[in-house]
Amino acid sequence: MTIYGTKMVRSCLQSAFPVFPMLKNYCSWEWQSLDPGIRQKVEPLHEGAEGTIIVEPVLVSKKPPLYAKSTQELDCQEDIWEVGLVLHNEDSGRCLAYFPTLENITPAIEACLKKADILMVDGTFWSEDELTGMGAAARDARSMGHLPISGPSGTLELLASFPAERKILIHINNSNPILKKDSVERYTLERLGIEVAYDGMEMEV
Amino acid sequence: MTIYGTKMVRSCLQSAFPVFPMLKNYCSWEWQSLDPGIRQKVEPLHEGAEGTIIVEPVLVSKKPPLYAKSTQELDCQEDIWEVGLVLHNEDSGRCLAYFPTLENITPAIEACLKKADILMVDGTFWSEDELTGMGAAARDARSMGHLPISGPSGTLELLASFPAERKILIHINNSNPILKKDSVERYTLERLGIEVAYDGMEMEV
Repeated sequence: MTIYGTKMVRSCLQSAFPVFPMLKNYCSWEWQSLDPGIRQKVEPLHEGAEGTIIVEPVLVSKKPPLYAKSTQELDCQEDIWEVGLVLHNEDSGRCLAYFPTLENITPAIEACLKKADILMVDGTFWSEDELTGMGAAARDARSMGHLPISGPSGTLELLASFPAERKILIHINNSNPILKKDSVERYTLERLGIEVAYDGMEMEV
Repeated sequence: MTIYGTKMVRSCLQSAFPVFPMLKNYCSWEWQSLDPGIRQKVEPLHEGAEGTIIVEPVLVSKKPPLYAKSTQELDCQEDIWEVGLVLHNEDSGRCLAYFPTLENITPAIEACLKKADILMVDGTFWSEDELTGMGAAARDARSMGHLPISGPSGTLELLASFPAERKILIHINNSNPILKKDSVERYTLERLGIEVAYDGMEMEV
Protein backbone atom coordinates (compact mmCIF):
# COMPACT_ATOMS: atom_id res chain seq x y z
CA MET A 1 0.00 0.00 0.00
CA THR A 2 1.22 3.49 -0.84
CA ILE A 3 0.13 6.40 1.34
CA TYR A 4 0.30 9.89 -0.16
CA GLY A 5 0.54 13.07 1.92
CA THR A 6 2.54 16.17 2.67
CA LYS A 7 5.77 16.02 4.64
CA MET A 8 4.06 17.77 7.54
CA VAL A 9 1.32 15.17 7.68
CA ARG A 10 3.93 12.42 7.65
CA SER A 11 5.80 14.08 10.48
CA CYS A 12 2.58 14.40 12.47
CA LEU A 13 1.72 10.72 11.93
CA GLN A 14 5.12 9.86 13.38
CA SER A 15 4.77 12.02 16.49
CA ALA A 16 1.71 13.99 17.68
CA PHE A 17 -0.68 11.38 16.24
CA PRO A 18 1.65 8.35 16.02
CA VAL A 19 -0.29 6.21 13.58
CA PHE A 20 2.86 4.88 11.91
CA PRO A 21 4.61 3.72 15.11
CA MET A 22 1.33 2.10 16.17
CA LEU A 23 0.74 0.35 12.84
CA LYS A 24 4.21 -1.04 12.39
CA ASN A 25 3.41 -4.29 14.22
CA TYR A 26 0.35 -4.85 12.03
CA CYS A 27 1.31 -4.10 8.44
CA SER A 28 3.71 -2.37 6.09
CA TRP A 29 3.28 0.51 3.68
CA GLU A 30 5.13 2.89 1.38
CA TRP A 31 5.10 6.64 1.81
CA GLN A 32 4.99 9.06 -1.09
CA SER A 33 5.27 12.79 -0.37
CA LEU A 34 2.99 15.27 -2.09
CA ASP A 35 4.54 18.67 -2.78
CA PRO A 36 2.53 21.56 -4.23
CA GLY A 37 4.01 22.44 -7.60
CA ILE A 38 5.39 18.96 -8.24
CA ARG A 39 3.33 16.70 -10.48
CA GLN A 40 3.82 12.98 -10.16
CA LYS A 41 2.52 9.77 -11.65
CA VAL A 42 0.43 7.70 -9.26
CA GLU A 43 0.35 3.93 -9.18
CA PRO A 44 -2.76 2.28 -10.62
CA LEU A 45 -5.26 1.73 -7.78
CA HIS A 46 -5.73 -1.89 -8.78
CA GLU A 47 -3.95 -4.40 -10.98
CA GLY A 48 -4.86 -4.22 -14.63
CA ALA A 49 -6.10 -0.62 -14.37
CA GLU A 50 -5.52 1.22 -17.61
CA GLY A 51 -4.19 4.69 -18.29
CA THR A 52 -1.83 6.95 -16.45
CA ILE A 53 -2.95 9.32 -13.74
CA ILE A 54 -0.84 12.36 -12.91
CA VAL A 55 -1.50 14.00 -9.57
CA GLU A 56 -0.94 17.73 -9.08
CA PRO A 57 -1.06 18.81 -5.40
CA VAL A 58 -2.28 22.34 -4.65
CA LEU A 59 -1.74 24.18 -1.36
CA VAL A 60 -4.94 24.60 0.65
CA SER A 61 -3.95 25.32 4.24
CA LYS A 62 -1.03 25.73 6.59
CA LYS A 63 -3.27 25.67 9.64
CA PRO A 64 -2.54 22.71 11.95
CA PRO A 65 -5.39 20.64 13.36
CA LEU A 66 -6.26 21.44 16.99
CA TYR A 67 -4.70 18.22 18.26
CA ALA A 68 -1.31 19.16 16.81
CA LYS A 69 -1.42 22.82 17.75
CA SER A 70 0.63 22.67 20.91
CA THR A 71 3.06 20.09 19.64
CA GLN A 72 6.68 21.12 19.55
CA GLU A 73 7.91 17.74 18.37
CA LEU A 74 7.01 18.11 14.72
CA ASP A 75 10.33 17.87 12.98
CA CYS A 76 9.44 19.33 9.64
CA GLN A 77 10.76 22.30 7.66
CA GLU A 78 7.58 22.60 5.66
CA ASP A 79 4.19 23.47 7.14
CA ILE A 80 1.63 22.30 4.61
CA TRP A 81 -1.25 20.59 6.38
CA GLU A 82 -3.85 20.48 3.64
CA VAL A 83 -3.65 20.10 -0.11
CA GLY A 84 -6.16 19.63 -2.87
CA LEU A 85 -5.40 17.30 -5.78
CA VAL A 86 -5.90 17.70 -9.49
CA LEU A 87 -5.95 14.26 -11.11
CA HIS A 88 -5.02 14.35 -14.79
CA ASN A 89 -5.78 11.60 -17.28
CA GLU A 90 -2.89 11.95 -19.72
CA ASP A 91 -4.66 10.00 -22.45
CA SER A 92 -7.88 12.00 -22.51
CA GLY A 93 -6.36 15.31 -21.50
CA ARG A 94 -9.16 15.73 -18.97
CA CYS A 95 -8.88 16.29 -15.22
CA LEU A 96 -10.72 16.14 -11.90
CA ALA A 97 -10.18 18.62 -9.05
CA TYR A 98 -10.48 17.09 -5.58
CA PHE A 99 -10.64 19.61 -2.71
CA PRO A 100 -12.19 18.07 0.40
CA THR A 101 -11.34 21.16 2.46
CA LEU A 102 -11.50 24.75 1.28
CA GLU A 103 -11.04 27.59 3.72
CA ASN A 104 -10.60 30.23 1.05
CA ILE A 105 -10.08 30.37 -2.68
CA THR A 106 -6.54 31.34 -3.60
CA PRO A 107 -5.70 32.25 -7.22
CA ALA A 108 -3.97 28.85 -7.60
CA ILE A 109 -7.05 26.99 -6.37
CA GLU A 110 -9.32 29.09 -8.58
CA ALA A 111 -7.20 28.24 -11.63
CA CYS A 112 -7.59 24.52 -10.87
CA LEU A 113 -11.33 24.74 -10.38
CA LYS A 114 -11.65 26.63 -13.66
CA LYS A 115 -9.82 24.08 -15.76
CA ALA A 116 -11.25 20.89 -14.25
CA ASP A 117 -13.85 18.77 -16.04
CA ILE A 118 -15.14 17.38 -12.75
CA LEU A 119 -15.14 19.19 -9.40
CA MET A 120 -15.28 17.46 -6.04
CA VAL A 121 -15.24 20.09 -3.33
CA ASP A 122 -15.72 20.73 0.37
CA GLY A 123 -19.37 20.28 1.33
CA THR A 124 -18.79 19.97 5.08
CA PHE A 125 -21.35 22.52 6.28
CA TRP A 126 -24.43 24.08 4.73
CA SER A 127 -24.24 27.25 6.83
CA GLU A 128 -21.66 29.25 8.71
CA ASP A 129 -23.35 28.66 12.09
CA GLU A 130 -24.45 25.06 11.52
CA LEU A 131 -22.65 23.57 14.54
CA THR A 132 -22.65 26.63 16.80
CA GLY A 133 -26.41 26.99 16.25
CA MET A 134 -27.07 23.49 17.57
CA GLY A 135 -24.63 23.94 20.44
CA ALA A 136 -22.31 21.27 19.05
CA ALA A 137 -19.21 23.46 18.65
CA ALA A 138 -17.80 26.81 19.66
CA ARG A 139 -16.31 27.62 16.26
CA ASP A 140 -18.17 28.42 13.07
CA ALA A 141 -17.60 26.82 9.66
CA ARG A 142 -14.92 29.19 8.34
CA SER A 143 -12.92 29.17 11.55
CA MET A 144 -12.89 25.37 11.32
CA GLY A 145 -11.39 25.74 7.85
CA HIS A 146 -14.50 25.13 5.73
CA LEU A 147 -16.34 27.51 3.44
CA PRO A 148 -20.05 26.87 4.03
CA ILE A 149 -22.11 25.86 0.99
CA SER A 150 -24.70 28.63 1.33
CA GLY A 151 -24.38 32.38 1.77
CA PRO A 152 -22.11 35.05 0.30
CA SER A 153 -18.83 33.61 -1.06
CA GLY A 154 -20.08 30.13 -0.15
CA THR A 155 -19.36 27.03 -2.21
CA LEU A 156 -22.65 27.28 -4.10
CA GLU A 157 -21.86 30.74 -5.42
CA LEU A 158 -18.36 29.55 -6.23
CA LEU A 159 -19.42 26.42 -8.11
CA ALA A 160 -21.84 28.38 -10.27
CA SER A 161 -18.94 30.31 -11.77
CA PHE A 162 -17.02 27.28 -13.10
CA PRO A 163 -17.68 25.42 -16.36
CA ALA A 164 -17.08 21.84 -15.10
CA GLU A 165 -19.49 19.21 -16.44
CA ARG A 166 -20.02 17.67 -12.98
CA LYS A 167 -19.90 19.44 -9.62
CA ILE A 168 -19.95 17.15 -6.60
CA LEU A 169 -19.96 17.95 -2.88
CA ILE A 170 -17.81 15.71 -0.66
CA HIS A 171 -16.61 15.58 2.97
CA ILE A 172 -20.15 16.22 4.22
CA ASN A 173 -20.64 16.52 7.97
CA ASN A 174 -23.48 14.54 9.56
CA SER A 175 -25.09 17.83 10.66
CA ASN A 176 -25.50 18.98 7.04
CA PRO A 177 -29.16 19.07 5.86
CA ILE A 178 -28.17 18.15 2.27
CA LEU A 179 -27.80 14.57 3.50
CA LYS A 180 -31.59 14.43 3.82
CA LYS A 181 -33.00 13.61 0.41
CA ASP A 182 -36.22 15.52 1.03
CA SER A 183 -34.66 18.69 2.43
CA VAL A 184 -35.03 22.15 0.90
CA GLU A 185 -31.25 22.41 0.83
CA ARG A 186 -30.90 19.20 -1.17
CA TYR A 187 -33.57 20.38 -3.58
CA THR A 188 -31.69 23.66 -4.02
CA LEU A 189 -28.57 21.72 -5.04
CA GLU A 190 -30.47 19.49 -7.43
CA ARG A 191 -32.01 22.43 -9.23
CA LEU A 192 -28.51 23.81 -9.77
CA GLY A 193 -27.18 20.46 -11.01
CA ILE A 194 -24.88 20.01 -8.02
CA GLU A 195 -24.44 16.43 -6.83
CA VAL A 196 -23.96 15.01 -3.35
CA ALA A 197 -21.32 12.27 -3.25
CA TYR A 198 -22.26 8.75 -2.11
CA ASP A 199 -20.45 5.44 -1.62
CA GLY A 200 -19.88 3.75 -4.95
CA MET A 201 -20.30 6.92 -7.03
CA GLU A 202 -18.47 6.70 -10.35
CA MET A 203 -16.95 9.37 -12.53
CA GLU A 204 -14.74 9.40 -15.60
CA VAL A 205 -12.14 11.81 -16.87
CA MET B 1 -17.33 13.00 31.50
CA THR B 2 -15.62 10.35 33.60
CA ILE B 3 -13.44 7.76 31.89
CA TYR B 4 -12.77 4.50 33.73
CA GLY B 5 -9.78 2.27 33.05
CA THR B 6 -6.72 0.59 34.48
CA LYS B 7 -3.59 2.58 35.27
CA MET B 8 -1.80 0.85 32.41
CA VAL B 9 -4.46 1.92 29.93
CA ARG B 10 -4.24 5.48 31.20
CA SER B 11 -0.48 5.44 30.81
CA CYS B 12 -0.83 4.10 27.26
CA LEU B 13 -3.35 6.80 26.35
CA GLN B 14 -0.81 9.38 27.48
CA SER B 15 2.09 7.96 25.45
CA ALA B 16 2.03 5.10 22.92
CA PHE B 17 -1.51 6.00 21.80
CA PRO B 18 -1.71 9.65 22.94
CA VAL B 19 -5.46 10.14 22.93
CA PHE B 20 -5.39 12.41 25.99
CA PRO B 21 -2.73 14.83 24.69
CA MET B 22 -4.64 14.95 21.38
CA LEU B 23 -8.04 15.55 22.99
CA LYS B 24 -6.98 18.26 25.39
CA ASN B 25 -7.67 21.07 22.91
CA TYR B 26 -11.18 19.73 22.28
CA CYS B 27 -12.72 18.82 25.62
CA SER B 28 -12.14 17.94 29.26
CA TRP B 29 -12.71 14.77 31.24
CA GLU B 30 -12.12 13.08 34.59
CA TRP B 31 -10.15 9.88 34.99
CA GLN B 32 -11.09 7.15 37.43
CA SER B 33 -8.76 4.17 37.83
CA LEU B 34 -10.11 0.64 37.96
CA ASP B 35 -8.16 -1.78 40.17
CA PRO B 36 -9.00 -5.48 40.35
CA GLY B 37 -10.06 -6.27 43.90
CA ILE B 38 -11.28 -2.74 44.63
CA ARG B 39 -15.01 -2.14 44.36
CA GLN B 40 -16.18 1.39 43.76
CA LYS B 41 -19.39 3.30 43.30
CA VAL B 42 -19.89 4.66 39.79
CA GLU B 43 -21.58 7.93 38.97
CA PRO B 44 -25.09 7.68 37.53
CA LEU B 45 -24.84 7.62 33.72
CA HIS B 46 -27.43 10.37 33.41
CA GLU B 47 -29.04 12.90 35.70
CA GLY B 48 -31.98 11.62 37.66
CA ALA B 49 -30.88 7.98 37.31
CA GLU B 50 -31.94 5.97 40.34
CA GLY B 51 -30.08 3.41 42.40
CA THR B 52 -26.43 2.86 43.15
CA ILE B 53 -24.16 0.84 40.94
CA ILE B 54 -21.01 -0.70 42.39
CA VAL B 55 -18.37 -1.77 39.90
CA GLU B 56 -16.04 -4.67 40.65
CA PRO B 57 -13.10 -4.93 38.20
CA VAL B 58 -11.70 -8.40 37.50
CA LEU B 59 -8.31 -9.11 35.92
CA VAL B 60 -8.59 -10.52 32.40
CA SER B 61 -5.23 -9.98 30.71
CA LYS B 62 -1.76 -8.56 31.15
CA LYS B 63 -0.99 -8.90 27.46
CA PRO B 64 -0.34 -5.54 25.76
CA PRO B 65 -1.96 -4.75 22.42
CA LEU B 66 0.38 -5.11 19.43
CA TYR B 67 0.67 -1.36 18.98
CA ALA B 68 2.06 -0.93 22.49
CA LYS B 69 4.31 -3.97 22.45
CA SER B 70 7.56 -2.28 21.59
CA THR B 71 6.91 0.80 23.66
CA GLN B 72 9.40 1.52 26.38
CA GLU B 73 7.77 4.79 27.40
CA LEU B 74 4.95 3.33 29.43
CA ASP B 75 5.57 4.68 32.88
CA CYS B 76 3.45 2.33 34.90
CA GLN B 77 4.19 -0.05 37.77
CA GLU B 78 1.14 -2.14 37.07
CA ASP B 79 0.58 -4.14 33.88
CA ILE B 80 -3.14 -4.77 33.68
CA TRP B 81 -4.36 -4.22 30.14
CA GLU B 82 -7.77 -5.83 30.26
CA VAL B 83 -10.39 -6.16 32.95
CA GLY B 84 -13.93 -7.42 33.07
CA LEU B 85 -16.53 -5.63 35.19
CA VAL B 86 -19.17 -6.94 37.53
CA LEU B 87 -21.87 -4.29 37.97
CA HIS B 88 -23.80 -4.67 41.21
CA ASN B 89 -27.18 -3.12 41.91
CA GLU B 90 -27.05 -2.62 45.67
CA ASP B 91 -30.80 -2.25 45.99
CA SER B 92 -31.78 -5.44 44.20
CA GLY B 93 -28.73 -7.46 45.17
CA ARG B 94 -28.42 -8.56 41.55
CA CYS B 95 -25.44 -8.17 39.22
CA LEU B 96 -24.30 -8.20 35.60
CA ALA B 97 -20.92 -9.56 34.45
CA TYR B 98 -19.40 -7.66 31.50
CA PHE B 99 -16.39 -9.37 29.89
CA PRO B 100 -15.84 -8.09 26.34
CA THR B 101 -12.57 -10.00 26.07
CA LEU B 102 -11.84 -13.44 27.48
CA GLU B 103 -8.63 -15.23 26.63
CA ASN B 104 -9.03 -17.87 29.30
CA ILE B 105 -11.23 -18.50 32.30
CA THR B 106 -9.38 -17.96 35.56
CA PRO B 107 -10.97 -19.10 38.85
CA ALA B 108 -11.76 -15.43 39.66
CA ILE B 109 -13.54 -14.94 36.32
CA GLU B 110 -15.40 -18.21 36.70
CA ALA B 111 -16.65 -17.14 40.14
CA CYS B 112 -18.03 -13.91 38.63
CA LEU B 113 -19.74 -15.67 35.75
CA LYS B 114 -21.33 -18.13 38.19
CA LYS B 115 -22.85 -15.50 40.44
CA ALA B 116 -24.07 -13.05 37.79
CA ASP B 117 -27.74 -12.71 36.84
CA ILE B 118 -26.86 -11.42 33.39
CA LEU B 119 -23.76 -12.33 31.39
CA MET B 120 -22.30 -10.20 28.60
CA VAL B 121 -19.25 -11.97 27.24
CA ASP B 122 -16.69 -11.99 24.44
CA GLY B 123 -18.34 -13.03 21.18
CA THR B 124 -15.57 -11.76 18.88
CA PHE B 125 -15.07 -14.89 16.78
CA TRP B 126 -17.20 -17.92 16.03
CA SER B 127 -14.24 -20.20 15.31
CA GLU B 128 -10.58 -20.42 16.15
CA ASP B 129 -9.49 -20.00 12.50
CA GLU B 130 -12.12 -17.46 11.45
CA LEU B 131 -9.69 -14.76 10.30
CA THR B 132 -6.78 -16.98 9.31
CA GLY B 133 -9.14 -19.08 7.17
CA MET B 134 -10.18 -16.05 5.12
CA GLY B 135 -6.60 -14.79 4.88
CA ALA B 136 -7.43 -11.70 6.94
CA ALA B 137 -4.95 -12.31 9.77
CA ALA B 138 -1.94 -14.42 10.67
CA ARG B 139 -3.06 -15.13 14.23
CA ASP B 140 -5.95 -17.29 15.34
CA ALA B 141 -8.68 -16.31 17.81
CA ARG B 142 -7.00 -17.44 21.03
CA SER B 143 -3.65 -15.91 20.15
CA MET B 144 -5.49 -12.62 19.61
CA GLY B 145 -6.85 -12.95 23.14
CA HIS B 146 -10.35 -14.23 22.36
CA LEU B 147 -11.91 -17.59 23.16
CA PRO B 148 -13.92 -18.56 20.08
CA ILE B 149 -17.64 -19.18 20.59
CA SER B 150 -17.65 -22.70 19.11
CA GLY B 151 -15.50 -25.73 19.74
CA PRO B 152 -14.00 -27.35 22.84
CA SER B 153 -13.70 -24.90 25.76
CA GLY B 154 -15.35 -22.23 23.60
CA THR B 155 -17.74 -19.62 24.95
CA LEU B 156 -20.81 -21.68 24.05
CA GLU B 157 -19.70 -24.60 26.18
CA LEU B 158 -18.78 -22.17 28.93
CA LEU B 159 -22.08 -20.28 28.93
CA ALA B 160 -24.08 -23.50 29.15
CA SER B 161 -22.57 -24.20 32.56
CA PHE B 162 -23.73 -20.97 34.24
CA PRO B 163 -27.19 -20.28 35.71
CA ALA B 164 -27.57 -16.63 34.55
CA GLU B 165 -31.05 -15.67 33.32
CA ARG B 166 -29.68 -13.88 30.25
CA LYS B 167 -26.52 -14.71 28.30
CA ILE B 168 -25.51 -12.14 25.73
CA LEU B 169 -22.60 -12.09 23.27
CA ILE B 170 -20.86 -8.74 22.76
CA HIS B 171 -17.74 -7.37 21.02
CA ILE B 172 -18.62 -9.26 17.84
CA ASN B 173 -16.20 -9.00 14.93
CA ASN B 174 -17.63 -8.22 11.49
CA SER B 175 -16.32 -11.58 10.24
CA ASN B 176 -18.52 -13.48 12.70
CA PRO B 177 -21.38 -15.43 11.03
CA ILE B 178 -23.69 -14.89 14.05
CA LEU B 179 -24.24 -11.35 12.76
CA LYS B 180 -26.26 -12.86 9.90
CA LYS B 181 -29.77 -13.44 11.17
CA ASP B 182 -30.34 -16.42 8.88
CA SER B 183 -27.06 -18.21 9.58
CA VAL B 184 -26.78 -21.71 11.05
CA GLU B 185 -24.54 -20.26 13.75
CA ARG B 186 -27.16 -17.70 14.78
CA TYR B 187 -29.80 -20.41 14.85
CA THR B 188 -27.56 -22.51 17.08
CA LEU B 189 -27.33 -19.64 19.57
CA GLU B 190 -31.07 -19.01 19.51
CA ARG B 191 -31.87 -22.63 20.27
CA LEU B 192 -29.61 -22.38 23.32
CA GLY B 193 -31.19 -19.10 24.47
CA ILE B 194 -28.03 -17.10 23.87
CA GLU B 195 -28.56 -13.54 22.66
CA VAL B 196 -26.54 -11.40 20.28
CA ALA B 197 -26.18 -7.81 21.50
CA TYR B 198 -27.53 -4.92 19.40
CA ASP B 199 -27.64 -1.13 19.66
CA GLY B 200 -30.35 -0.06 22.07
CA MET B 201 -30.59 -3.43 23.84
CA GLU B 202 -31.91 -3.08 27.38
CA MET B 203 -31.35 -5.19 30.46
CA GLU B 204 -32.16 -4.84 34.14
CA VAL B 205 -30.45 -6.04 37.28
